[in-house]
Amino acid sequence: MKVRLSPIMIRHAVESALLEDLGRAGDITSDATIDGDALAFATLATREDGIICGLPLAEAAFGMLDNGLEFKSSIVDGNSIVAGDTVATVKGNARAILSAERVALNFLMRMSGIASYTHRFADVISHTKAKITCTRKTVPGHRAFDKYAVRCGGGSNHRFGLDDAVLIKDNHIAVSGGVKPAIERAKSFAGHLVRIEVEVDTLEQFSEALSADPDVVLLDNMSNEQLTEAVKINKSDNGGAIKLEASGNVTLDTVKAIAETGVDYISTSKITMSAPTLDLGLDIKIG
Amino acid sequence: MKVRLSPIMIRHAVESALLEDLGRAGDITSDATIDGDALAFATLATREDGIICGLPLAEAAFGMLDNGLEFKSSIVDGNSIVAGDTVATVKGNARAILSAERVALNFLMRMSGIASYTHRFADVISHTKAKITCTRKTVPGHRAFDKYAVRCGGGSNHRFGLDDAVLIKDNHIAVSGGVKPAIERAKSFAGHLVRIEVEVDTLEQFSEALSADPDVVLLDNMSNEQLTEAVKINKSDNGGAIKLEASGNVTLDTVKAIAETGVDYISTSKITMSAPTLDLGLDIKIG
Amino acid sequence: MKVRLSPIMIRHAVESALLEDLGRAGDITSDATIDGDALAFATLATREDGIICGLPLAEAAFGMLDNGLEFKSSIVDGNSIVAGDTVATVKGNARAILSAERVALNFLMRMSGIASYTHRFADVISHTKAKITCTRKTVPGHRAFDKYAVRCGGGSNHRFGLDDAVLIKDNHIAVSGGVKPAIERAKSFAGHLVRIEVEVDTLEQFSEALSADPDVVLLDNMSNEQLTEAVKINKSDNGGAIKLEASGNVTLDTVKAIAETGVDYISTSKITMSAPTLDLGLDIKIG
Amino acid sequence: MKVRLSPIMIRHAVESALLEDLGRAGDITSDATIDGDALAFATLATREDGIICGLPLAEAAFGMLDNGLEFKSSIVDGNSIVAGDTVATVKGNARAILSAERVALNFLMRMSGIASYTHRFADVISHTKAKITCTRKTVPGHRAFDKYAVRCGGGSNHRFGLDDAVLIKDNHIAVSGGVKPAIERAKSFAGHLVRIEVEVDTLEQFSEALSADPDVVLLDNMSNEQLTEAVKINKSDNGGAIKLEASGNVTLDTVKAIAETGVDYISTSKITMSAPTLDLGLDIKIG
Amino acid sequence: MKVRLSPIMIRHAVESALLEDLGRAGDITSDATIDGDALAFATLATREDGIICGLPLAEAAFGMLDNGLEFKSSIVDGNSIVAGDTVATVKGNARAILSAERVALNFLMRMSGIASYTHRFADVISHTKAKITCTRKTVPGHRAFDKYAVRCGGGSNHRFGLDDAVLIKDNHIAVSGGVKPAIERAKSFAGHLVRIEVEVDTLEQFSEALSADPDVVLLDNMSNEQLTEAVKINKSDNGGAIKLEASGNVTLDTVKAIAETGVDYISTSKITMSAPTLDLGLDIKIG
Amino acid sequence: MKVRLSPIMIRHAVESALLEDLGRAGDITSDATIDGDALAFATLATREDGIICGLPLAEAAFGMLDNGLEFKSSIVDGNSIVAGDTVATVKGNARAILSAERVALNFLMRMSGIASYTHRFADVISHTKAKITCTRKTVPGHRAFDKYAVRCGGGSNHRFGLDDAVLIKDNHIAVSGGVKPAIERAKSFAGHLVRIEVEVDTLEQFSEALSADPDVVLLDNMSNEQLTEAVKINKSDNGGAIKLEASGNVTLDTVKAIAETGVDYISTSKITMSAPTLDLGLDIKIG
Repeated sequence: MKVRLSPIMIRHAVESALLEDLGRAGDITSDATIDGDALAFATLATREDGIICGLPLAEAAFGMLDNGLEFKSSIVDGNSIVAGDTVATVKGNARAILSAERVALNFLMRMSGIASYTHRFADVISHTKAKITCTRKTVPGHRAFDKYAVRCGGGSNHRFGLDDAVLIKDNHIAVSGGVKPAIERAKSFAGHLVRIEVEVDTLEQFSEALSADPDVVLLDNMSNEQLTEAVKINKSDNGGAIKLEASGNVTLDTVKAIAETGVDYISTSKITMSAPTLDLGLDIKIG
Repeated sequence: MKVRLSPIMIRHAVESALLEDLGRAGDITSDATIDGDALAFATLATREDGIICGLPLAEAAFGMLDNGLEFKSSIVDGNSIVAGDTVATVKGNARAILSAERVALNFLMRMSGIASYTHRFADVISHTKAKITCTRKTVPGHRAFDKYAVRCGGGSNHRFGLDDAVLIKDNHIAVSGGVKPAIERAKSFAGHLVRIEVEVDTLEQFSEALSADPDVVLLDNMSNEQLTEAVKINKSDNGGAIKLEASGNVTLDTVKAIAETGVDYISTSKITMSAPTLDLGLDIKIG
Repeated sequence: MKVRLSPIMIRHAVESALLEDLGRAGDITSDATIDGDALAFATLATREDGIICGLPLAEAAFGMLDNGLEFKSSIVDGNSIVAGDTVATVKGNARAILSAERVALNFLMRMSGIASYTHRFADVISHTKAKITCTRKTVPGHRAFDKYAVRCGGGSNHRFGLDDAVLIKDNHIAVSGGVKPAIERAKSFAGHLVRIEVEVDTLEQFSEALSADPDVVLLDNMSNEQLTEAVKINKSDNGGAIKLEASGNVTLDTVKAIAETGVDYISTSKITMSAPTLDLGLDIKIG
Repeated sequence: MKVRLSPIMIRHAVESALLEDLGRAGDITSDATIDGDALAFATLATREDGIICGLPLAEAAFGMLDNGLEFKSSIVDGNSIVAGDTVATVKGNARAILSAERVALNFLMRMSGIASYTHRFADVISHTKAKITCTRKTVPGHRAFDKYAVRCGGGSNHRFGLDDAVLIKDNHIAVSGGVKPAIERAKSFAGHLVRIEVEVDTLEQFSEALSADPDVVLLDNMSNEQLTEAVKINKSDNGGAIKLEASGNVTLDTVKAIAETGVDYISTSKITMSAPTLDLGLDIKIG
Repeated sequence: MKVRLSPIMIRHAVESALLEDLGRAGDITSDATIDGDALAFATLATREDGIICGLPLAEAAFGMLDNGLEFKSSIVDGNSIVAGDTVATVKGNARAILSAERVALNFLMRMSGIASYTHRFADVISHTKAKITCTRKTVPGHRAFDKYAVRCGGGSNHRFGLDDAVLIKDNHIAVSGGVKPAIERAKSFAGHLVRIEVEVDTLEQFSEALSADPDVVLLDNMSNEQLTEAVKINKSDNGGAIKLEASGNVTLDTVKAIAETGVDYISTSKITMSAPTLDLGLDIKIG
Repeated sequence: MKVRLSPIMIRHAVESALLEDLGRAGDITSDATIDGDALAFATLATREDGIICGLPLAEAAFGMLDNGLEFKSSIVDGNSIVAGDTVATVKGNARAILSAERVALNFLMRMSGIASYTHRFADVISHTKAKITCTRKTVPGHRAFDKYAVRCGGGSNHRFGLDDAVLIKDNHIAVSGGVKPAIERAKSFAGHLVRIEVEVDTLEQFSEALSADPDVVLLDNMSNEQLTEAVKINKSDNGGAIKLEASGNVTLDTVKAIAETGVDYISTSKITMSAPTLDLGLDIKIG
């Protein structure tokens, strides 16, 4: 798992989250009940099987409230974990550990949830060449983290925003006078390091798309029979150089059959928007 | 539904989300295929029944990309909607509408999802005095919006952060030498406008808690029999002045029986962390 | 003195203050006259008796301009200091010490001023159960620091903002149709971790307030006779469970008599808005 | 009164102040008790004589919570006001007026306090050529506003930061080998649009300073006799081209005699750090 | 010219620039000499031939200091202008126009400079299929604006950052064990909407690159003979599906011959880093 | 070279630049091809003679992506460098070095370009007393850095913004009723630590200016004969106490003759707006 997050992106996100939680008065419960120099030892463990994701953010959360805290982990983001596994330990000032706990867990539980759910999709289709991929349906402000979690779970990333690739949809096609003119407009507009994808609903549109040679065609809401046919047409037309992405009605139940049609990518917002959080907990011993 | 969001909080969140999506080069697909002065008319509709939430954020998303867009809606956050209902319409510059679409929907789908899921819990226990309430398990940076959505769905809000109420948990109790001393420490520390809640696991701890007169006791992971007993003890001890909150294993299946034990509040992270998004879509006609 | 400020809040405030003072060209006087690698030893001393407050901000100011500076102090915020006392020493790069001096002192003098003035009020009423408490009349952007200084001086904190407690005033009462309906509205609206206070001007309003069982009643601008009567009524009505707060015409001269009426809290904006700064100075030896 | 504040500086400061006060949950008291579409009419009046300052910030505070509010005022910053005067009126959404009230008043009371207190100093010395001037002892983050208020009160501004003028103090002199070499270093270092001031404690130092031709000499903690002597020397030396500034022990009682020594400027931190707030209030009628 | 800048990106950049120029005290020259309600009429004209770029930023600069200013222009970014042409007019408050002048011109002169210089390169090679394209050598913080200006001048955009395309250089090749394995690693790592470019120095490396089928090959510092040979090989190998980009020693003198070798793109940092500013001026009539 | 940049200003600028370059997905090329724990040794060398400037920003860029990187340099900003010189070395994590490379070089090449170009002007006039000085024509957001680079190159700084000195131009003169009344208005308005400069086009205006005793007169677009005459008049009028600044048509060819007229300062936007970047490169060895 080679993808990583820049420390400066992590710092911004974690600091905002801590400030949100600390508010104006800070952790008044810990201030009231815990001695300022009390020490604690905390064990971060998982209560469910899954894929861990978000460790650098958790580490940053603890470090920002007390840079003397020792955060240790023998695993890294993307590793499989089993219910009961210790994920990390934290040692040091008790108040700081307690105050950072919720923010650390909120990142970890959500990101590990996305990674774990993505992994289940990836697992079901691992016998095919298809890859599960995300969309731009992510929580506002968390796109980089959501997409990183998808990678950690074995998925692949779609566009990160409106600006890093062209994705031509029905409205763009309608005003451009058809699939082919729309792709041609995009080709003449976009820089040479920008890929162009077009979304089609029918095999007729698909054939028109192929004639304009896009990088990727998104086959939306097609039956598996249509997908199979599209894969066949694509191979005879361009030897598979143009990549095919399927979307629509993608669930853990349907994804296997979709993958077996021979498409290259299967995109779904489920892995970012409907992933159950992974249950992790922090067990703290003070003193 | 009286709760509302300040326009300045909305502006910050929506602007960040738009900048995240537009990146450095903006919406290159629309720039390539849509004429700069083309007009469009868009209809925002729901594909599922639920509770609408996030309309002011959606309106802001469109307005920030073109302040000449006309956003109209005849409903407000917290209203029930039925699959097929038109939620709002937007009229004006086509590129601006297309560029803002995803951000508007990402807010609406997530917030309406939380509101709708909360409403289902609230509905199941509406014959009791219990209220469903959220926790601090929210997506980092979205707490105000997540908690607003809970209110829109008929739920009640727990603490917004570490600073607006005291919540004494096991670790605080352990280092304070017991439930009672912990509550006493908190009372002597906290200002007079700060409520104090203590979490207990057993009826013995509960009795000790009552003797220190907190504002709220959180009964964690107790059986319904224990909850019923706690309610009875509480009534005889203080006439119910101390509020009782239940937590642990709260699902749509279990919540009814928990509510019928007579507790005042039932808290769960499910309504913020596990709510399915509500499926909304934007149908756009250009020209 | 258990209250503390989060390092991330300190960092934000101090950095903004330094950037404000350094402007675009930095400390041109020191750059012109002091050698870049000259060393200095500075002694921070108080010229007045009082309560020290703001040491972590002063330390941050020096550290941000040169993280090699050694800041040492044998006291902590909230400690009493006597004119002539050394409060802290700073050792290291001379330019950095001189450039940070004003910002460090501006925080220290204002915050120690608030702490010291609060302490004088607290001292005068220490033979009673009453506590001196602040209001929301604070310098914009400094609320957390102003309120922290109040705590360091032995005072107690009122609301930190509009959102962490309900405070019903005359206008809210007027539109709600009376004291009692206003409290009832608030109770049905607010979450269970939110306290409710109501402000009353007369004993009639006070009695109406008691009948709705708020958490706190603010007795505004009442005579000491009225306050005494209110305390008596309160005791017989609810055994003192409802807390009483007095406000209006609170000065170092009047506060003793107010406290002796038996009220629980005495609130005044004087401690944050009219506290004289405490005179502290930095004596620097270069080379 | 010609000085003015840029709308973009006002917006930043007021927005931060509102966000600080609204917190994460907003004005829960108004949300609970005031109908969302209730209207109000508010009168902002002064309870003390003084100089008004901060009206554009107050107007911004109301406008940011509801841009439909009508804010009207027939006076401008720097005008004299008399106890009982209406300073401004606000009309529109009741909740928005109530939610912005405290922030608007916190700016107005502090800034009008500085302007009014400055004006008292300016008034006492108006028969002389001396001007009262501020220092860099201001509340962190508020320098532009504090200094603007000084101008509104009839005072003059000293440096706004470390970067816009050179002010050579004892430490700079010590390491430079004397007053004259220090001024010469500054002259050779600073750009031609930067003024150079030097602080001296004795008449000997003063004479040395004159020989190096600075723009301004700060005569610190000198007796009025020394000041008179310095003025005389200055006139014979350079015809008064070099400006003289007095500081130390400046109060409303001492300032007249200081001014009558013939100095050009009298600087004091009292006008920014010890100015009593001006008592203003908002009278609101709802419905 | 279809590319455009989002209003929210413009607002951020222009506001920062105005705050930088206004500092803490604002435009003291205009405050001192111009009456607060004086009106002015300003004509923005070009003193050189070129391509206009930056009009929306100039408009924003004036509007932010007084939203009553009328900014009018009959041209748009990307249009050709001739020395003496009126580019825009501004009418309204005199102080606001004068205070915004420098910021408006600083954006316009730099961005028009880039657009105009790019246009000269584009013009020289317009008889070929080659396009002039920029690099990541841009002024920090201005990448979106620099690249927009390149588009306005008729150039094409390369990567906007490290994240929107893969560009494999010598170091990446060295550690990957060769050109081919490096491309293969990138293909297996990158998402399907990410293009892959590889930089080669020799025709041997070029052939190895073709065998791994990247999207683009960057031919760095090759002679025109080598470039011609590469174009020929490329056509026979893949029919020109792989795009060829030349870089190194690109000047207005050399670019024509490079373009005539048949490459698809010619990239150079000159158009962003060495473009002379275009001379524009604001002629203001007050009163 | 005594001027320096505050570490907090550097941090802000460098972090923004890195975030701009890393975007949402980070350095995908390095992530794809370089092992996460690979080490590298990089040598930063200059390919041209000039003046180095920006080293602290380059160091910060590397440090922010991995605080374990060792950055070493035996020179400091303002030093002369010769083509081939090693400017600095960086050792540590390979990915971090590669990811920070472009940002570090973009700062260094631009700032060293300004310093080097300024130095050429300074060199040509070093036999005179004149100093080359910059203007407010700088890249938005980079003023402090552009002006610092001018200092490093041996130039002097003009105003940093609209607020730190008065510069009266034709429009201010026109509405004030002449040069003299404009200066008088400015003198009565500005604080005593603010210098006043006036721009004149003719010797008549110049004489009028002298009669009002400004600090500096800017002689705009005058012939060298007029400049010589102005210098003569100035000496006889005030002994040269008023400083003279020449502007207009300042190039490396014309500057010598202008300087020899005897003016004190020669200002030009060329050194900030037209300086060629200095060619620096990073040679990286991985493993």
